[in-house]
Amino acid sequence: MNEYRDLRVALLGCGSVGAQVARLIIEHGDELAARIGARLTLSGIAVRDTTAKRDVDLPQELFTSDAERLVQGSDIVIELMGGIEPAKTLILQALQGGADVVTANKALIAAHGPELAEAAEQVGAQLSYEASVAAAIPILRPLRESLAGDHITRVMGIVNGSTNYILDRMDRFGDSSEDAMRVASELGYLEADPTLDVEGYDAAQKATILASIAFHTEVPVDAVYREGIANITLEQIETAKQAGYVIKLLAIAERITSADGEHGVSARVYPALIRRDHPLAAVYGGKNAVFVEAEAAGELMFYGAGAGGAETASAVLGDVVSAARRHVVGGPGIAGSLHAGLTILPVGEVNTSYQVMLEVQDQPGVLARIAGILAEHGVSAASVKQSIADGAHERASLVIGTHIGRESDLAAMVDSLRASDLVHEVTSVLRLEGNE
Amino acid sequence: MNEYRDLRVALLGCGSVGAQVARLIIEHGDELAARIGARLTLSGIAVRDTTAKRDVDLPQELFTSDAERLVQGSDIVIELMGGIEPAKTLILQALQGGADVVTANKALIAAHGPELAEAAEQVGAQLSYEASVAAAIPILRPLRESLAGDHITRVMGIVNGSTNYILDRMDRFGDSSEDAMRVASELGYLEADPTLDVEGYDAAQKATILASIAFHTEVPVDAVYREGIANITLEQIETAKQAGYVIKLLAIAERITSADGEHGVSARVYPALIRRDHPLAAVYGGKNAVFVEAEAAGELMFYGAGAGGAETASAVLGDVVSAARRHVVGGPGIAGSLHAGLTILPVGEVNTSYQVMLEVQDQPGVLARIAGILAEHGVSAASVKQSIADGAHERASLVIGTHIGRESDLAAMVDSLRASDLVHEVTSVLRLEGNE
Repeated sequence: MNEYRDLRVALLGCGSVGAQVARLIIEHGDELAARIGARLTLSGIAVRDTTAKRDVDLPQELFTSDAERLVQGSDIVIELMGGIEPAKTLILQALQGGADVVTANKALIAAHGPELAEAAEQVGAQLSYEASVAAAIPILRPLRESLAGDHITRVMGIVNGSTNYILDRMDRFGDSSEDAMRVASELGYLEADPTLDVEGYDAAQKATILASIAFHTEVPVDAVYREGIANITLEQIETAKQAGYVIKLLAIAERITSADGEHGVSARVYPALIRRDHPLAAVYGGKNAVFVEAEAAGELMFYGAGAGGAETASAVLGDVVSAARRHVVGGPGIAGSLHAGLTILPVGEVNTSYQVMLEVQDQPGVLARIAGILAEHGVSAASVKQSIADGAHERASLVIGTHIGRESDLAAMVDSLRASDLVHEVTSVLRLEGNE
Repeated sequence: MNEYRDLRVALLGCGSVGAQVARLIIEHGDELAARIGARLTLSGIAVRDTTAKRDVDLPQELFTSDAERLVQGSDIVIELMGGIEPAKTLILQALQGGADVVTANKALIAAHGPELAEAAEQVGAQLSYEASVAAAIPILRPLRESLAGDHITRVMGIVNGSTNYILDRMDRFGDSSEDAMRVASELGYLEADPTLDVEGYDAAQKATILASIAFHTEVPVDAVYREGIANITLEQIETAKQAGYVIKLLAIAERITSADGEHGVSARVYPALIRRDHPLAAVYGGKNAVFVEAEAAGELMFYGAGAGGAETASAVLGDVVSAARRHVVGGPGIAGSLHAGLTILPVGEVNTSYQVMLEVQDQPGVLARIAGILAEHGVSAASVKQSIADGAHERASLVIGTHIGRESDLAAMVDSLRASDLVHEVTSVLRLEGNE
């Protein structure tokens, strides 16, 4: 057996992911040592309550409540506490002490990623966070390294498993929104505060991280346009199904050009219609997937588990092995280079198409007048379908699919439809994505 | 504008991939320089005929017929000539001269990968070949790096676009095998010698590369069990469809345990039945995808274009950028470490299940006697379906699906069925994969 030098690994946090990371480091010790050329030695696990019960049986002497002290003298620090503080301060202390840092903390990276990356770069340390987006799926490394010679044009991800589970139940089992939410909650898919998932905040954090890495540009999380799935109805899903679509909550990061010719970046989260034969349409249940379009590579998709203790731990360990190899053989830390500095353009500048459902007066000439409203905004219809005519109430239901246009024009068109005396109600407005 | 040092890049070969690589290096020069911290300078392109017409307009002065001289003094050599020689000798010369080498040459890597990796390791150079498997799809780097802390148990890929296109046409458009082959040939999907694709030789080379990287074990290409799709009939595809399956040519690399308890590796290529809701079932046309199962990460899939000049060039450039960064900031070359040295077990040791279609005598007691033949080999039936009884000829057609068993037992069962006087003909034998 080879004699390997030891690398001191400090683990901060021991929830479902942390416990699995500790287990893998211990159980796979020999195999990891052979791959790295050094042995990962767990020097301690910092937790608030050192006597709490864990998912995995771990040596009690590893636990400490003194995270600051544990960080000192570590070669690699794994931060799995979540939240902003004390995680951020501990990560900065670790980096300043020369340690490489691996984290799965999407909230922290979305809020302070550039600051932490700069701190790492200043001391030549490595900061990596593959597990912060889509858990087990290798997506940040492929975006950063495999596609480094290409020009990424769009990243479109199903990056929140809870909302995908809810939408998938509605689509495949005909659950109402309320029933699907209840089942998701019972199965532990939803956080204690479900608005983080349902209103798209979680997906927006991931959109920030994906956009920053794909486009080498700092994209603050509050620059991400965001709509959640709280108002998606079973009727919308059924109508989509009949037309050959499925509704998915998408996090989109895209290079776009504004109306006045400025090249920039858009980052946004909203539920959208996707054609049934699009690879993202076959992402069922709580699974995640990220669809990437690049100038030369064309269309790529990365699919897998978007949550789970062991699954997330796999991504964390991949980063740990990368950092450990660097300790053995030298070389630079990964620099989260933001050299491009593209402008972040507002959602109004995005090109998309709309599917609008509305109830109109069932009278002669109504279609021509609706078409006139579209034309006023420079919007052209790709399809108009009169789905139900209710003679008794003199109402008709229309489903209008538009050609691709500018979001600001499409939104203004919907406002005009709402204001028209012909229109009783606009019952649904959804964007179509992945269609061009 | 920053002043960057130059890195001399030599390109060997200028077919559809090489021309795109040259284009990207020239057109994206500034962006690549910003990412790398050095400028990629194309020092020359070695071709047999320096006056031939190219896919892309490139400066004539770059072309040379003297590959050996071009390689000398290069920092990075990109080998896109294909074939074993002179590619192998030139790569060895490049490595010995201290250059990093990027290649898309699957035949060469499948045949001589370990020897070339050793040559690279001896001089501390980097040898990378992401584009050799599934072209644009980042798969080798995620297997090697992102999953470095995990334990990969199985890799199952649709890695030959031509055969996927043929099978997909048969499945979705009801083409006969001959018609689908003809269309594939007309569209340029098939090589001049179609047996490389159709008989699974191309997929076997990729299985070798995938198995070696996933399991850190040298897997020679002639240790890959191989069956092609030449004998797949439309009837088999229709029968599969009725039962909820689709037939795909799979390259499988798997950790298995032999009957006498030895842990080892299996690598094999064959057409197999996949459930329609499996992610691999939605890989249409000429697309590729690699489905990966790992102990902690669970199921992952990587999807994208498996061929094409620009698509393959994207993967080549990713490797070039990685090598170039190493020149700028130091650090070791990627070592294709084969430390595990697992035994390669024969296909008979694999666990799989069979779907067998056969014509039997339509007489009382035949099912019981067929069941008896299964039982003799320790095989148990999961389903038996009598699909057509032809009273006039006293024949019945049976479709038997087995539970999972050892390949050697299942194959012996089929031999016994063929030998039985009850059986007129065994019309189809297919394995089911991705089902457990």
